[in-house]
Amino acid sequence: MVKFKAIGVSEGLAKAKALVIKEEDLSVVKETVADAEAECKRVLDAVEKAKQQIEVLRDDAEKNIGAAEAEIFDAHLMMLDDPDFVEGMTNIVTDEKVCAEYACFVNCENFQAMFRALDDEYMQARAADIGDISQRVIKNLKGIADNAIDTITEPCIIVANDLTPSDTAKIGGKPVAGFITKIGGRTSHSAIMARSMGIPAIVGAGEKADEIADGDLLLIDGAAGEVVAQPDEQTLADFAERQKADAAHRAMLAQYKDKEGATSDGRRVIIEGNIGTPDDAVRVAELGGEGVGLFRSEFLFMDRTDLPSEEEQFAAYKKACEIMQGKPVIIRTLDIGGDKEVPALALEKEQNPFLGYRAIRICLNQPELFLIQLRALLRAAQYGDLRIMFPMISSVDEVRGAKQVLEQAKDMLTAEGVPFNPNVKVGIMVEIPVAAVCADVLAKEVDFFSIGTNDLIQYSCAVDRINEKISYLYRPLHPGVLRLIAMTAKAANENGIEVGVCGEMAGTAGMAPVLCGLGVTNLSMSASAMLAAKADLAKHSYDECRELADKLLACASASDAERIFTDWRES
Amino acid sequence: MVKFKAIGVSEGLAKAKALVIKEEDLSVVKETVADAEAECKRVLDAVEKAKQQIEVLRDDAEKNIGAAEAEIFDAHLMMLDDPDFVEGMTNIVTDEKVCAEYACFVNCENFQAMFRALDDEYMQARAADIGDISQRVIKNLKGIADNAIDTITEPCIIVANDLTPSDTAKIGGKPVAGFITKIGGRTSHSAIMARSMGIPAIVGAGEKADEIADGDLLLIDGAAGEVVAQPDEQTLADFAERQKADAAHRAMLAQYKDKEGATSDGRRVIIEGNIGTPDDAVRVAELGGEGVGLFRSEFLFMDRTDLPSEEEQFAAYKKACEIMQGKPVIIRTLDIGGDKEVPALALEKEQNPFLGYRAIRICLNQPELFLIQLRALLRAAQYGDLRIMFPMISSVDEVRGAKQVLEQAKDMLTAEGVPFNPNVKVGIMVEIPVAAVCADVLAKEVDFFSIGTNDLIQYSCAVDRINEKISYLYRPLHPGVLRLIAMTAKAANENGIEVGVCGEMAGTAGMAPVLCGLGVTNLSMSASAMLAAKADLAKHSYDECRELADKLLACASASDAERIFTDWRES
Repeated sequence: MVKFKAIGVSEGLAKAKALVIKEEDLSVVKETVADAEAECKRVLDAVEKAKQQIEVLRDDAEKNIGAAEAEIFDAHLMMLDDPDFVEGMTNIVTDEKVCAEYACFVNCENFQAMFRALDDEYMQARAADIGDISQRVIKNLKGIADNAIDTITEPCIIVANDLTPSDTAKIGGKPVAGFITKIGGRTSHSAIMARSMGIPAIVGAGEKADEIADGDLLLIDGAAGEVVAQPDEQTLADFAERQKADAAHRAMLAQYKDKEGATSDGRRVIIEGNIGTPDDAVRVAELGGEGVGLFRSEFLFMDRTDLPSEEEQFAAYKKACEIMQGKPVIIRTLDIGGDKEVPALALEKEQNPFLGYRAIRICLNQPELFLIQLRALLRAAQYGDLRIMFPMISSVDEVRGAKQVLEQAKDMLTAEGVPFNPNVKVGIMVEIPVAAVCADVLAKEVDFFSIGTNDLIQYSCAVDRINEKISYLYRPLHPGVLRLIAMTAKAANENGIEVGVCGEMAGTAGMAPVLCGLGVTNLSMSASAMLAAKADLAKHSYDECRELADKLLACASASDAERIFTDWRES
Repeated sequence: MVKFKAIGVSEGLAKAKALVIKEEDLSVVKETVADAEAECKRVLDAVEKAKQQIEVLRDDAEKNIGAAEAEIFDAHLMMLDDPDFVEGMTNIVTDEKVCAEYACFVNCENFQAMFRALDDEYMQARAADIGDISQRVIKNLKGIADNAIDTITEPCIIVANDLTPSDTAKIGGKPVAGFITKIGGRTSHSAIMARSMGIPAIVGAGEKADEIADGDLLLIDGAAGEVVAQPDEQTLADFAERQKADAAHRAMLAQYKDKEGATSDGRRVIIEGNIGTPDDAVRVAELGGEGVGLFRSEFLFMDRTDLPSEEEQFAAYKKACEIMQGKPVIIRTLDIGGDKEVPALALEKEQNPFLGYRAIRICLNQPELFLIQLRALLRAAQYGDLRIMFPMISSVDEVRGAKQVLEQAKDMLTAEGVPFNPNVKVGIMVEIPVAAVCADVLAKEVDFFSIGTNDLIQYSCAVDRINEKISYLYRPLHPGVLRLIAMTAKAANENGIEVGVCGEMAGTAGMAPVLCGLGVTNLSMSASAMLAAKADLAKHSYDECRELADKLLACASASDAERIFTDWRES
């Protein structure tokens, strides 16, 4: 029996066999070969195999995701059918008498350089495609199997170094009972995705994860971060007991499904879900979400080499509205940069990406990109209570600038005779400290606020939220953070607009009463946290919430506040 | 005649010949050689030449800087005398029949890898030394002359891609009339150094600087950022007129030298200087500074491969106190990380260094390092009004932690019978947004505040201050920034402690009345800006300053505030 503890980031108990995903070594060494002809055949075989693999992926994508995703694979196939591309490799083998792997690597570099030299966004994106397919060919040459996630058919718990967003996206359709990763923290993407999928997850396990062998029976507790491999009889029996108790607790929570979020004396706090794709809204609706408080539209842009068209975006936004059947759906406009990359935009690498060119800064600077999204949003707003939210706002000027582009989008649609909803509500994320400090000014410009606590804490405490070395400084209950939230809520309340919290803090156990006490009117979180938040709120009166919030605001330090919060939770 | 404009970062007019410093190409190509013996001789010659160069540098350093710096060069000489190191190179040449440059490069990598593998800070630093000397050998092999700055003897204006801190440090003793760099912004190090040395400087010139040829006569205006190369007669005559007027203006300012900083009706604002080395204090004293508001102690730690000893630090702090003759000298403890590297600490590279492991975070985590500095400070405090300031404070816990280490240093000195001043005042930098928001709590823990506006703006607006792509968002007059300053000043005033500003904002023309109006009691800036700040203050009553500050605080946006400020300056 192997037991260890790491960072539990998505609650739930799971029991299944381990699927250990090894990191692939795709490095290439320049080796001379005697028989160039045989080596050329290796190239051609690997290309042929790649074509077959891609055809399967394309068909899967067409069936499970959509035509747009399938088209990417068509582009890949076209390249592998291009004689120039394939001969590029075989010529290098023949001329330089080098191994197929190295030839594939050099050929990739050559083609990428060529595409990159063309100063055109489309061609730049093609360079990324070249990288993808060359990597696939190298994998085939080295005999490395395709991503193990693609081949999952039986229930399992994934053990990996890290899961990319595309990995977690793939998990959706598979019988994955949970996952353990070596790196990451509470707010890493894989953690967020796990919570939105409602599967238990443990991250930051480091070398301890190496003790798990592929096929080991695993028991994991995603709340406590506990992992047991090859459990003994007693541990298995105890775990079964806990699963039973857990089921009972879930049944208790289920009674809140159709209730509105409110304190015991009826002060309303609207409980909503965060989503990354329209399909995520299904779970929000099923678990009694009173709306979608945050649709992260950037997920439509990531892990692909082209940009989603207006039609594709329109379809996605419309679908989310339809699933939510008239309940509010707040869609955040493109929030990329920072730790979120969009290959098609080919953004420059920055020294401090979190303090860099991202989100609304990109959109205001590239209105042609922004307009496409705004047009899609305005059109989709006919199908529900869609609201538009601008991220990373630091000034009134930016709000006005963004609203101007929105008006331009309306004018365009009107001129073209395309139907849309002109009365869509517009709000902003309050996540930059000066926005909170100037919330009174900003409240006069918009229909709602949503406080992004992840970034607000990061900036106001000057602590990179994914830097493990200083993670002890990332404290949601820092009195300075609470004061900024209170300032924002006060300005919103005085101006009669809604003020939500959509960062991780909203979904943290016990935080709903605190945030309610600070004056927040909406909470948006992972679907899996919504019922517990309603239950937390229902246990306390509004006065109790305010009293608690006042005590926390008056603390000298985060440690004092955390002590008060814990005592209060346990009392 | 060539004319262009870039970012003027240090005011003043200068006329001198251009010294264009070209970027050196130190890249190395693997080339096979036929005559290995001749190639080995090239290696030995380049090593011999390097030894001679280093001997000269060592003697210069001993004479002009100090014994500690000279020791670094002794270590370099020892390595070049080590047969293993030199034979490492010749063996590669002989065995692989490759060129001397490549052999030197590979040998460097091998030795660095060996040193790095030893898990010991001292050995890690030696890896950096190996890099230095290998680079010198490659330079000699390629026939690249030593840094042009070392050889300056006649007045000149330097034109370079960028100047490293060690470059700007070298400029100190040379007849450099000014400089122009291709990259950089208002708060880059070279800009800060230029202001503290009082020489005109223009940065961010980009490709325009390529139009200047070495030896061209240059006219530069460091305030307006204007550059003229090969001026015609008329331009020369006009410039001479401007230099005359400038001299008259300087004479007007000179009358403030011995006056205290104050508004027209006598509200005191103490005007102090920022320094990087003890010698910089000479200029602060000469230009009538009422103290040193910021001694950036990290400059003692940078551009070297070992750490300064307690004795060396003690001598530096003592010297600054002695130069200031009893006037306050605020010494900021080690503020590294972010964009400031200390090779001897071998800090890991971070994703977002400005939001990372830096300053007090490092010191609290490595108290052995911190203790040495605090002991040196306590001892030097016998020689003047030395005050200790902790940077990057985000919480009361950190202040208490730092004060605890200070008490420990006192206990150690007492136990050892080493004399020191136990009554040294302790303050903090307010530069992280939550520190400003919680200033009321923090004011009860310390003797003074100093607001670091560079970082405060950076964090509160979420804008990397050296990322040119978003520099338009770096706005000192953002109402949110002004509110945070006002909050901090109010808390300080209510608790009866001094509150200074030591960021770039303090020294910006016209800002002194604004900051006075916000409640700030001390302003610390480049020595060259102090007289103008006193003159700015003397022109207005305290009521006028407050009225102006209130108007700016009430603005909706930075653009509105900037307009009001400009109108007020021009009225």
